[in-house]
Amino acid sequence: MLLGTGNVARHLYDAITKTNSFELIQVAGRSSTALEYFGKKTDTTYNFLDLEEADIYILALSDSAIGDVGNLLKNKDGLIVHTSGSTPLEVLPPEARRGVFYPLQTFTKEIAVDFRKVPLCLEAENEEDYKILEELAAQLSDLTYRVDSKKRQQLHIGAVYVNNFVNHLFHIGHSICKEQDLPFEILKPLIGETIRKIGEITPFEAQTGPARRQDQTTIDLHKKQIKNKARKEIYSVISNSIRSTYG
Amino acid sequence: MLLGTGNVARHLYDAITKTNSFELIQVAGRSSTALEYFGKKTDTTYNFLDLEEADIYILALSDSAIGDVGNLLKNKDGLIVHTSGSTPLEVLPPEARRGVFYPLQTFTKEIAVDFRKVPLCLEAENEEDYKILEELAAQLSDLTYRVDSKKRQQLHIGAVYVNNFVNHLFHIGHSICKEQDLPFEILKPLIGETIRKIGEITPFEAQTGPARRQDQTTIDLHKKQIKNKARKEIYSVISNSIRSTYG
Repeated sequence: MLLGTGNVARHLYDAITKTNSFELIQVAGRSSTALEYFGKKTDTTYNFLDLEEADIYILALSDSAIGDVGNLLKNKDGLIVHTSGSTPLEVLPPEARRGVFYPLQTFTKEIAVDFRKVPLCLEAENEEDYKILEELAAQLSDLTYRVDSKKRQQLHIGAVYVNNFVNHLFHIGHSICKEQDLPFEILKPLIGETIRKIGEITPFEAQTGPARRQDQTTIDLHKKQIKNKARKEIYSVISNSIRSTYG
Repeated sequence: MLLGTGNVARHLYDAITKTNSFELIQVAGRSSTALEYFGKKTDTTYNFLDLEEADIYILALSDSAIGDVGNLLKNKDGLIVHTSGSTPLEVLPPEARRGVFYPLQTFTKEIAVDFRKVPLCLEAENEEDYKILEELAAQLSDLTYRVDSKKRQQLHIGAVYVNNFVNHLFHIGHSICKEQDLPFEILKPLIGETIRKIGEITPFEAQTGPARRQDQTTIDLHKKQIKNKARKEIYSVISNSIRSTYG
């Protein structure tokens, strides 16, 4: 049973309906329009008070909705899991069998993802339930990790740095190119190499640039040449962090 | 003629000695140990006052050395170019034919680079000299761009964001994994997807995460969970920048 109709729900749905060992018996969501995506092959409902019985209930919901929807399920026999990185297992009702099934990936509606390469971070309160999650996970992905709530929260923060924040730095690079009437393509080989390097050496070893060299002259020159206030602040804060990492 | 023995000099050397149309007649550097890399196939010297005559002098030197070494060449007939992103053409002696030959890539000694995929940013004071640089560039790379000093300086700053700073964010992700006793591999598929997305959509469109959603609750939660001061500052500053980009 899948509850939710957002990006994570869609990608999970596509992955689960491809497996043979697990049958998805129902998808529940508040919007009948959003349910259309699932309705062709699976029973759907917008009534959270009249759900089918299932072995596993997957709550692929926004962080703020997990507690409330979880509460509606507190008398179910099945295992209840959420898919959130930053939400502890404990927001699920203590009366229920609880777990977490967190796919560590960025999902966009229009962009297909190879789910077999999505790391699945699993947590359950007892070994039997953990084994159930492990079986489901193995059907969907090659990458399964046991990660408790505390570790998962830190990992989710790590994901914000390497995905959300990295993407914003790409946006700054993109903006600079645009302002200078240069194609963003000119930075792509450098971006490719930045990634390729950390496949061979650690990011600590891969670091280059003025801050790494403690080259305050170039740092000052750059700061003078950056007019945008938010960019200048980012430049300062990350340069200081690099300097103190190697200082 | 190549002046300098660092990473850029090495990678340029390897690329130039592979071409047929251009002959590298000498490599000049201050350290005889560093010159050994070049000495097997090419004449080398550590005496900058006794250089061979050449059509092009490439100064692959640290930013601070370009002016002084350039001055030693001011009476040469050949075209004098430097390879620096942040240094204007004007630091080269005005008496000389001047240009810039800036490879926009990160070079590490141990890691081989496909030079044909390195964007070469060219500048010269007159059309004839530009054509000469263009010919040399075409022998080495498929990617040639005409970029004047002002644009190049901004581009170099862009490179700092998408390479140096992105790598530091990877380092933070790596450190968080280490602290939580999780392998860095767990973040690699997410990093791969972060890059893959900007091949299909702009970074502006690809942005996800709490700051993009203006989700202050998660942002505050994360800040509470980040103990490291430098990391917390980076988290705040980039989150603010994302929020105002979409606000």
